[in-house]
Amino acid sequence: MEAKSLKIALIGTGNVAWHIANAFTQTAHQIVEVYGRNIQNTNEFAGNLNALVKDSLNFKESQAEIILLAVSDNALPEIIAQMQLNSNQIVAHTSGSTPITIFDALPCKANFGVFYPLQTFSKTKQVNIQEVPFCIEGNSTETATCLKSLAEAISRKVFLISSEERLKLHLAAVFANNFVNHLLGISQEILQKENLSFELLRPLIQETFAKAMEAENIYAIQTGPARRNDQIIIQKHLQLLQNEAYKQKIYEIISESIRQKS
Amino acid sequence: MEAKSLKIALIGTGNVAWHIANAFTQTAHQIVEVYGRNIQNTNEFAGNLNALVKDSLNFKESQAEIILLAVSDNALPEIIAQMQLNSNQIVAHTSGSTPITIFDALPCKANFGVFYPLQTFSKTKQVNIQEVPFCIEGNSTETATCLKSLAEAISRKVFLISSEERLKLHLAAVFANNFVNHLLGISQEILQKENLSFELLRPLIQETFAKAMEAENIYAIQTGPARRNDQIIIQKHLQLLQNEAYKQKIYEIISESIRQKS
Repeated sequence: MEAKSLKIALIGTGNVAWHIANAFTQTAHQIVEVYGRNIQNTNEFAGNLNALVKDSLNFKESQAEIILLAVSDNALPEIIAQMQLNSNQIVAHTSGSTPITIFDALPCKANFGVFYPLQTFSKTKQVNIQEVPFCIEGNSTETATCLKSLAEAISRKVFLISSEERLKLHLAAVFANNFVNHLLGISQEILQKENLSFELLRPLIQETFAKAMEAENIYAIQTGPARRNDQIIIQKHLQLLQNEAYKQKIYEIISESIRQKS
Repeated sequence: MEAKSLKIALIGTGNVAWHIANAFTQTAHQIVEVYGRNIQNTNEFAGNLNALVKDSLNFKESQAEIILLAVSDNALPEIIAQMQLNSNQIVAHTSGSTPITIFDALPCKANFGVFYPLQTFSKTKQVNIQEVPFCIEGNSTETATCLKSLAEAISRKVFLISSEERLKLHLAAVFANNFVNHLLGISQEILQKENLSFELLRPLIQETFAKAMEAENIYAIQTGPARRNDQIIIQKHLQLLQNEAYKQKIYEIISESIRQKS
C-alpha cells in the first residue's frame, strides 16, 4: 500500500528543520513552502528543497496540508498567535517540553498536534533519522494517525506520547544528554589543565555507556568512591576542586545522591 | 626482541585481579602465586591460573619478581604494613587515587610503584585490555621501566604518570564514569516511573557520547534549556522533581554550572 503523498510547509530553518527537510526528500512527501525569520537563510533553505519562500503566516490559501513548526520553544506563542489556517490543515510543533494545549491560542479552527524528534541535532553532523524516536500527539485520533504515518515515512521508531509523558521524557533526556555532556566537559577541563589527553578516558567512557545501556537497573552497577563511601578519596578530590565552586558543589551533591541510592 | 619472562604474585581476587590475571595468561609472564582474604575464592582463582595459594604476606622466599596489589584502596595500608619483600622484588598497587608514597610504610627495603589500569571492570563483562590505558609510576627509573614493559605485554596504551597527575586523572574519571552513570540512572528511573522504555533514549545517548568524544571543547557543544537559559522549561522540570530532593538539587546545580560556562 502506498501512503498518500502529503504537502508540507516548514516554519523554521534551524537544525531540526534542516534534518527533517533532508529526511523528507527521500520520501513521497514534499516540502512545498518554507517560512523563516532570516530572509537569506530562508531563500537558501527553500532553494535547496525546490520549495517556495513564504512571507506570511497566513496558510489559508496555501497548498500545504501539514505545517510543521520547527522553531525554538520561546518563539512558539508568537508564531501560533499569528497563524491563519484552513480547517483541513494540520499544524504540529517539534518541541519536547511544550504541551499540545499551546495550540488553544490558534486564532482559527484547525487540527493540531506534536511531531517531536527525540534527538540532539546539529547541521554539521549526520544523524540516522530512521533510528530517531518520533513522539506524536494529535487533537484527534485522525490527526494523530496522519502525523504518525508522516513520521513513519522517515523513522522506524514512532510512538504516540501524551504531553505529560513527553515532558517527563524531555526531563529524562536533559539528564542523559545535557547534564552528561556537561560532566564530560568538566572531565575534559580537569585533564586539559594538567596537559593530559582526554583520549586517556575514551575506553572508560565507552565502557560506561555500554554498561549503562545494558543494565536493567543502572543504579545497581554504580561503582566508585561515593558508592563505597570512601571518605578519604572523596576529601582528596574535593581538595583538588577547592577553587572551583561549581565543580565542588556538583561533586558533593552527586556523591550524596549516589550514597542515598546505595 | 623477546621480553624477559617475569614471575608475578597477585594479591587480591576481585574484578581488577581477575582481568589482569586473565590478560597475563596470553603472555610470556606468569602468575605464580595468589594471596586473598577469602580462602575458597583464592583456591579457585589460583587453580584456574595453575598458581600457588599464598597464605602469608612474606615474599622473602617467594620466586615472584613482581607483586601486584589489586585490592581496595582501604585495604592497602594494612597489607603494605605486613609485607615482607627482598630487595630484588618490585611491589606495585593498582589504585587510581593512592599516591606512591603509601609504600614509605613498607617494613622492608624494596622497589615499589604503581600499575593502574584506567577502566571500570566487572567479572561478567569482557574488556579489551589491549585498549585499557595503564598508568605507571616507579620509585626509580629502573622500577618504572620494568613495570612499563610488564604493562606493555597486555596493553597498547601505557603511560608514565606521576601520583599528582594520576589523582587528577582519577577525579576526571569519577566525573566521566561514576557521575555520568548516576545521571543515566536518574534518567532511567524517571522513565520507568512513567512506564516509558529507556530504549527511547538510546539514539540520543549514543549521539551524546559520539559528539563529546569528537569535540575539542565539550562545553562549546552544550545544548538544552540551561544553555539557552529557558526559565519556563527549567521551572516545569523542577516542578516535576518537587518530591525528589536530590534530583532537584542536581538539576539546579548542573543547570547553574552550564549557565556559568555559557
